[in-house]
Amino acid sequence: MATDNERYDLGVAALAAITGGTGTAVVESLKDIAPDLAEWIVSFSYGDVMSRPGLDLRSRQFATVAALTAMGTAAPQLKVHINGALNVGCRPSEIVEVILQMAVYAGFPSAINALNIAREVFKERGVLIGS
Amino acid sequence: MATDNERYDLGVAALAAITGGTGTAVVESLKDIAPDLAEWIVSFSYGDVMSRPGLDLRSRQFATVAALTAMGTAAPQLKVHINGALNVGCRPSEIVEVILQMAVYAGFPSAINALNIAREVFKERGVLIGS
Amino acid sequence: MATDNERYDLGVAALAAITGGTGTAVVESLKDIAPDLAEWIVSFSYGDVMSRPGLDLRSRQFATVAALTAMGTAAPQLKVHINGALNVGCRPSEIVEVILQMAVYAGFPSAINALNIAREVFKERGVLIGS
Amino acid sequence: MATDNERYDLGVAALAAITGGTGTAVVESLKDIAPDLAEWIVSFSYGDVMSRPGLDLRSRQFATVAALTAMGTAAPQLKVHINGALNVGCRPSEIVEVILQMAVYAGFPSAINALNIAREVFKERGVLIGS
Amino acid sequence: MATDNERYDLGVAALAAITGGTGTAVVESLKDIAPDLAEWIVSFSYGDVMSRPGLDLRSRQFATVAALTAMGTAAPQLKVHINGALNVGCRPSEIVEVILQMAVYAGFPSAINALNIAREVFKERGVLIGS
Amino acid sequence: MATDNERYDLGVAALAAITGGTGTAVVESLKDIAPDLAEWIVSFSYGDVMSRPGLDLRSRQFATVAALTAMGTAAPQLKVHINGALNVGCRPSEIVEVILQMAVYAGFPSAINALNIAREVFKERGVLIGS
Repeated sequence: MATDNERYDLGVAALAAITGGTGTAVVESLKDIAPDLAEWIVSFSYGDVMSRPGLDLRSRQFATVAALTAMGTAAPQLKVHINGALNVGCRPSEIVEVILQMAVYAGFPSAINALNIAREVFKERGVLIGS
Repeated sequence: MATDNERYDLGVAALAAITGGTGTAVVESLKDIAPDLAEWIVSFSYGDVMSRPGLDLRSRQFATVAALTAMGTAAPQLKVHINGALNVGCRPSEIVEVILQMAVYAGFPSAINALNIAREVFKERGVLIGS
Repeated sequence: MATDNERYDLGVAALAAITGGTGTAVVESLKDIAPDLAEWIVSFSYGDVMSRPGLDLRSRQFATVAALTAMGTAAPQLKVHINGALNVGCRPSEIVEVILQMAVYAGFPSAINALNIAREVFKERGVLIGS
Repeated sequence: MATDNERYDLGVAALAAITGGTGTAVVESLKDIAPDLAEWIVSFSYGDVMSRPGLDLRSRQFATVAALTAMGTAAPQLKVHINGALNVGCRPSEIVEVILQMAVYAGFPSAINALNIAREVFKERGVLIGS
Repeated sequence: MATDNERYDLGVAALAAITGGTGTAVVESLKDIAPDLAEWIVSFSYGDVMSRPGLDLRSRQFATVAALTAMGTAAPQLKVHINGALNVGCRPSEIVEVILQMAVYAGFPSAINALNIAREVFKERGVLIGS
Repeated sequence: MATDNERYDLGVAALAAITGGTGTAVVESLKDIAPDLAEWIVSFSYGDVMSRPGLDLRSRQFATVAALTAMGTAAPQLKVHINGALNVGCRPSEIVEVILQMAVYAGFPSAINALNIAREVFKERGVLIGS
């Protein structure tokens, strides 16, 4: 069983790899209203879950993008994780494939709305969509 | 632009690769109530979408398992696609990873309920869960 | 403004027309746990809402079947309202059309699961599906 | 079985009747990021599904408005389809009825949020709400 | 059985206690598009349901904030009911607790998005978040 | 920052208070397929979240019952938490109130389906519903 410091450190590393952000920034963004949520995001979401060795980060980001697209209730997080997918080496065209596939499982509106978020991310980063 | 026969044939191949089933079986299962839905499942879902070359079938199945776990409204389809994930070479432990990750994005109940379906599939196929 | 008795009486009539059931049966089914819910179902759902003159009952049932299919969380109510759709003169083939259309807006699993409920209703009533 | 060109042409006609838009505009809006999605929207959603003869377009639009209202995750598409409902002859007052009915099946917030979108559409088109 | 006037009056009182608003304001806000919805909100939601004596208003608001956070589809209503929770004596820190708890049941994105709405409400009212 | 053992111990105590179950039972139920999920349920859900001092357990259970009722996708967990609500001192009549209130926010089907689960729990425990 990891100690809490180990969990936090693992989380900081996964957070950096996926979102490009720092644990400090997460802590800062929530310290006025829910500082413990920042700790949970780092230690639990990124430390306990996303750091697990059994699945590569590319597959993890495909899974997250798929789920958030299908749910349709988490636009800000979908934007974070499309960025995250690019950060861990998913190609823009692969991210688009995952989103398109959701038309089958969650309906066309979910795919269209997610594509609009993807387009925004791609533009902000200047990546070629078809690449 | 593919002809409809080409779409159907592509779909039959993808359907076989993913679900292990045949187009004929899908058609048979729906012919009493909605024969055209069978055609759409084969030609659109499997022919137009799942057959696309831009993403490997393992990643596609991770995406589908993630989405259906997160939605929590499609138990029969989740069962089909956990089987499908195994069919295209996802390891049981990887499928479990994708489901566990959904605890973060869609809540613990969605992950627990999906795991129970995964356990059922693994038992029916006699696969070792930790493999 | 209608009196409460008028609302209840309107509701009983709409309930009979749509579900074929009686206000008494609704009241009976809930009197052990939530008798006021029975009153709300009759007076509000059927009296205030479903009795309104601005839309015919066929269109109202198409709307309800569509919504419950898309939501995917209300199988027992979907069964009641597929029956209700038949009761107010929707043809089985029209009900199937509404359900199929949901594949576009809410994904194939929602349509497939709703069709299985529709098939069950059609069998119980001995109606020809293609009629 | 229709050829793909026939499906596309059917879709273009249904798209024009419902949204007032052209296949070209759909294609144009998605060609930078997912050109095939445009083709699916035209050929599958409008060609295969919405063009089917078994249900009139008014009933189809009531079903779509009901579903998108109940889902609560597709505001842009709800706006398109409230416009679509007006285009195929649904009266504003009937569209309001469908939305109000969703308070019963999906809760008051879903109905209130959809009404705000409807009001926006009615204002943009200058239609009288009570008509 | 209450008369309709009694229901409306009960509702107006509950509405004032929870939202700080008046029945007249609700009626005014909907009279152009759906005046009856205003009546339902006052007489049914606040008169029949929220006025019931079996549960205190603090618990009712915790329940509503929890549900709207988990659903993730009703941001404007969540804002109203975080205000409402403060109005009936819930402490800001308790509201934050309810929202944080939803991370477990509905996923981290639902909690994060609701916290952002709570922060907005707290700022508008100048309440200390940790109080 | 608590050590992991402290988190687990806190979680075991909260789990016992709410569900009446033991950490060992949770671990046992998941050890074949996802032993780490058991650890997360105990240490994160019950240790980090449900053990927090800022909100009483009765309010926490009302919040969970409200959310799971509204979501409509977690029947087994709703059953656990209606039991949990009784365990921490919520009266059956109060639980019914929370569920009824969800008719307003998430629609009548969500309330009706949750009431059926509540009735089942009340019967199994032999509690009087109106108490």
